[in-house]
This record gives sequence, C-alpha cells and structure tokens, in this order.
Amino acid sequence: MIIKIDLQSEIPIYNQLQNSIIEGIASGHLKPGEPLPSVRNMASDLGVNMHTVNKAYNLLKQEGFIQIHRQKGVVINPDGMPGVTSEYLKKFKQDIRPIIAEALCRGMTGKEFDKFCNVIFDDLKVKGGNSDG
Amino acid sequence: MIIKIDLQSEIPIYNQLQNSIIEGIASGHLKPGEPLPSVRNMASDLGVNMHTVNKAYNLLKQEGFIQIHRQKGVVINPDGMPGVTSEYLKKFKQDIRPIIAEALCRGMTGKEFDKFCNVIFDDLKVKGGNSDG
Repeated sequence: MIIKIDLQSEIPIYNQLQNSIIEGIASGHLKPGEPLPSVRNMASDLGVNMHTVNKAYNLLKQEGFIQIHRQKGVVINPDGMPGVTSEYLKKFKQDIRPIIAEALCRGMTGKEFDKFCNVIFDDLKVKGGNSDG
Repeated sequence: MIIKIDLQSEIPIYNQLQNSIIEGIASGHLKPGEPLPSVRNMASDLGVNMHTVNKAYNLLKQEGFIQIHRQKGVVINPDGMPGVTSEYLKKFKQDIRPIIAEALCRGMTGKEFDKFCNVIFDDLKVKGGNSDG
C-alpha cells in the first residue's frame, strides 16, 4: 500500500499519515494483523520526522486501529477495528458539522450531499474489493 | 448570534470562528448584509488575539462569505453566498473522505452515515427557522 503525504498541504503530516492508514484499512488494503513499517522506516520512507510518525502511530494505537509491540512491531489491530462508540460519534458529529454547514450555505441539498458521500463510500469499498461492507 | 469558541479544542481558533460564522449563515441567524463586529471588537468579545480574527475574516472574505469595507465595516455578503464551485467540491471531497474512511472502518453503513448527516442538516435548518432549504 502506498502512503501519500502532501508536504504542501495545510493538514498536519501526522494527521495525513493517520488518515492514509485508516483509509487503507477501510478499503481493505491493510488487513487486521498486517505489519506496518517501524517508526524509523516509515519516517525514512516518507522523508518526515520520526516524531511525526510516532504521533500518528500513538493516536492510531489509542483509538484501537493498530497495536504496537516491542518485538512484533507495529500491526493493524488483529482483534478487529474499534466500533461506533458514543465517544467516536461525538467526534464524528463535531467534525462533520462545519462541512455540512458550509454545504448548506452554498446551496447544496441534503440529497446532493448524500450522493457525493455515497460516491466516496463506494470508491473506498471498490478500491479494496471490499464489497460486503 | 452567540459565537462559541473552545480554547481547549485542537481546532485552531481562527478555524472555529470561521466555522461559527458559516454555521450562523447556514442556519439563517446571520443574513446577507448583516454586520459583524469589527476585528477589534470581535477579538475583545472572544478574548482572542486580533490576528486570529483577522485571519478568520480574511479567509471568509476570500471565499465570498463576507465583505470587508473600510467604512461600512464587516458584513455578511449582501450579494448572496458562494455556490458549489468545482474548487469547493474538491476541498469538500478532500475534507469528508477521511471522515467517511473512519466511519467505514468502524463498521458504519452508508445508510447510517446518511441518517447522522441528515439529522445535522435538519438541526441547522430548524435552528434558523430556515425550513425552505
């Protein structure tokens, strides 16, 4: 799986890395139990600071997407993904609310919004051949 | 309209201010042509730096949500809101993609996603009594 980082983006690099890995899992490119490069290797591959990779990995670990073992290294959580918890839903609503507010401001209807989102949903699923989701 | 800023949030303050104003417009609390406090007054009301307010106002101006006049001051764009441009759609998809990826990872279905989003759509519209949107 290729992790793309945009050094010119306004989105912090640790955040882009987090998002890339989550997208990899969502699309089925990264399977539970699959290893990820060590902090050192990932930093070297991407040409970014080790602290940046460390921050992304620690956040992913906190949320339950990956496990970090001293010996086995970094792996996608073999016990499955975290679910739709109430804490997650709170963050979800907080993150998506300003996007919906802007869409509404610009005259996008709820139906159009759903359509755009469904295209992205399908795109992620098709990319991973994960059509049962 | 009350602008709420969370100084403990990870979201930069200028961004929270931008989002609050856009939400105000979306919900109909802030109407086209309506004045906003000057940079100085908004900064003083919120207890934040003037540069922070300046940044938020400039970004809102660039996108066409507000106008900044030397004499009339800051007003919600009286000529109406910017539309669903291709540039906006690009940003929209970029912003919403990681949210959808995480939802998918956590096992949220497309239908559930639509439902949560529709609740927020309706909430914004109801808050402003803007039920024709």
